[in-house]
Amino acid sequence: MNRIKILSPATVANLACGFDVIGLALDIPVDEILLYKSNSPGIRINRIDGTTLPKDQKKNVAFVSLQALLKKYQQRFYKEKKIGFEIELIKNIHPGSGIGSSAASAAGVVYGANILLGNPFNRMQLIRFAMEGERIASGSAHADNVAPAIMGGVTLVRSYQPLDITKLHSPNELWVSIIHPQIEIKTSDAREILKQKILMTDAIRQWGNIGALVAGLYQENYELISRSLEDFIVEPIRAMLIPAFYELKIRCKEIGALGGGISGSGPSVFMLSKGNDIAKKVTEVMNLVYSPLKVDYKTYTSPINQKGVKFSEIL
Amino acid sequence: MNRIKILSPATVANLACGFDVIGLALDIPVDEILLYKSNSPGIRINRIDGTTLPKDQKKNVAFVSLQALLKKYQQRFYKEKKIGFEIELIKNIHPGSGIGSSAASAAGVVYGANILLGNPFNRMQLIRFAMEGERIASGSAHADNVAPAIMGGVTLVRSYQPLDITKLHSPNELWVSIIHPQIEIKTSDAREILKQKILMTDAIRQWGNIGALVAGLYQENYELISRSLEDFIVEPIRAMLIPAFYELKIRCKEIGALGGGISGSGPSVFMLSKGNDIAKKVTEVMNLVYSPLKVDYKTYTSPINQKGVKFSEIL
Repeated sequence: MNRIKILSPATVANLACGFDVIGLALDIPVDEILLYKSNSPGIRINRIDGTTLPKDQKKNVAFVSLQALLKKYQQRFYKEKKIGFEIELIKNIHPGSGIGSSAASAAGVVYGANILLGNPFNRMQLIRFAMEGERIASGSAHADNVAPAIMGGVTLVRSYQPLDITKLHSPNELWVSIIHPQIEIKTSDAREILKQKILMTDAIRQWGNIGALVAGLYQENYELISRSLEDFIVEPIRAMLIPAFYELKIRCKEIGALGGGISGSGPSVFMLSKGNDIAKKVTEVMNLVYSPLKVDYKTYTSPINQKGVKFSEIL
Repeated sequence: MNRIKILSPATVANLACGFDVIGLALDIPVDEILLYKSNSPGIRINRIDGTTLPKDQKKNVAFVSLQALLKKYQQRFYKEKKIGFEIELIKNIHPGSGIGSSAASAAGVVYGANILLGNPFNRMQLIRFAMEGERIASGSAHADNVAPAIMGGVTLVRSYQPLDITKLHSPNELWVSIIHPQIEIKTSDAREILKQKILMTDAIRQWGNIGALVAGLYQENYELISRSLEDFIVEPIRAMLIPAFYELKIRCKEIGALGGGISGSGPSVFMLSKGNDIAKKVTEVMNLVYSPLKVDYKTYTSPINQKGVKFSEIL
């Protein structure tokens, strides 16, 4: 087996109160990645569809993630240097959308390469390689998108030193509506406007909500999930970057959304709902709020993707 | 039914990373409370064994909690003013121990009075009355001891405005070791030394740990529970108030404790273990660490009390 096609999903990081620690994987949108193992050393990105990514391959997230994997592979398992990969990326997840575009590239290539090499690495190791890609993309080797992309479902990053990630239970009926306003917010800018110190009282409210959100997922208690989707720390600062953010939130909740917030560092906004029917209505409301604005946008309605990145075919 | 005997349990608040939001109930120690309903209006505390509590009854936590209940009862259900209670408190939980002495008094009287009145109030209402007692005892109407005392098990206070408390799943094999060094730390003092602002990076670590602790309880994953029992915010400040705190913690973990920390605002220290056997060994180690010190102390080994406050007999 030398050629493989991978489907790598979009992801929502932060989940309101879960800033920097909770993330979930979506069924759509999804990147397609074609990966070929060759005897010609090195990593080459032969095609990128759907967007323009850095021409310098060494700054491309897929390149850097796969390089990290290949380096470890050659150190540990294989003295032979005659191994290389060719990559084709069909990007359906827009870079800068806030739904894990770089994570999808990173997760996809390391997941695919691992299969082509005979599965030498476990999922936690793959997450580490993909985090190296995230370091290039956003300046920090964060895991809150690559973890759900690789593990599927809803994930929690307990700690980075040491890396400790757990997959949470999530109810089957939990659906996600996404609106991606096509404006540019750089992750690094969105991070810079945050405060370095926060009030203890706000922090306590935030960790009360996180505990309750996790409990709500395990209890399949949609009302508790709904009440927990609050963020008093990051959202009040970042909301100003997103047109009509509060109107979106209010109107989506009026129609039945459990709650939501900014996806990752934005500009996408996510809303959770119980069931496909309500989620579709919520997405319609997102369209209604944005259609009068002079901002291009895309919307998606998706269940939680329990499997995460997967291969669609062996070529 | 006019006379009742109540057993009201000790509780551990905070649970390391769960500062101000998580608490659990113990089987021992337990306060005994005798409660009599009479036709003579007013609340009278006729006897307090085991400690000296404020002579001014209006500053007694049992008095204040029961008064809050009685006021609401007379407003809502009963115009007749000829109703009163006599209380006898046998305090086995020392005031100022950090294992919920005031909460046990508060929870016990409101739970007992509710039975004697024919159960007009639900558990959440009882928690509100007991919180009024906590306001007198510690200056803030906190719920992280009265909630587990009344609901049993491990509880999480998501929010105070509105009051939102959920009972978490907890594995049967989770046991608690407690050491109560008999030194005085006032809750108000322990609170004053805390910082009003904390680093965002520390807060994120704390809520990663809280999320993982809740997930660990539901997964019955003792290793995850163990890794989550970290507190970078409150423990480093309060630990200095407790003799040999870090030695206790290190030696208890060496013998097999999952982890632990300061119970409430101290001075008691708690450790969680998987199973009674390890918990007993952990309690022995606590004794070994403290026996050379010139500090009186008591130790307890207890499972988690799933039921909380209960009545032992109708007199």
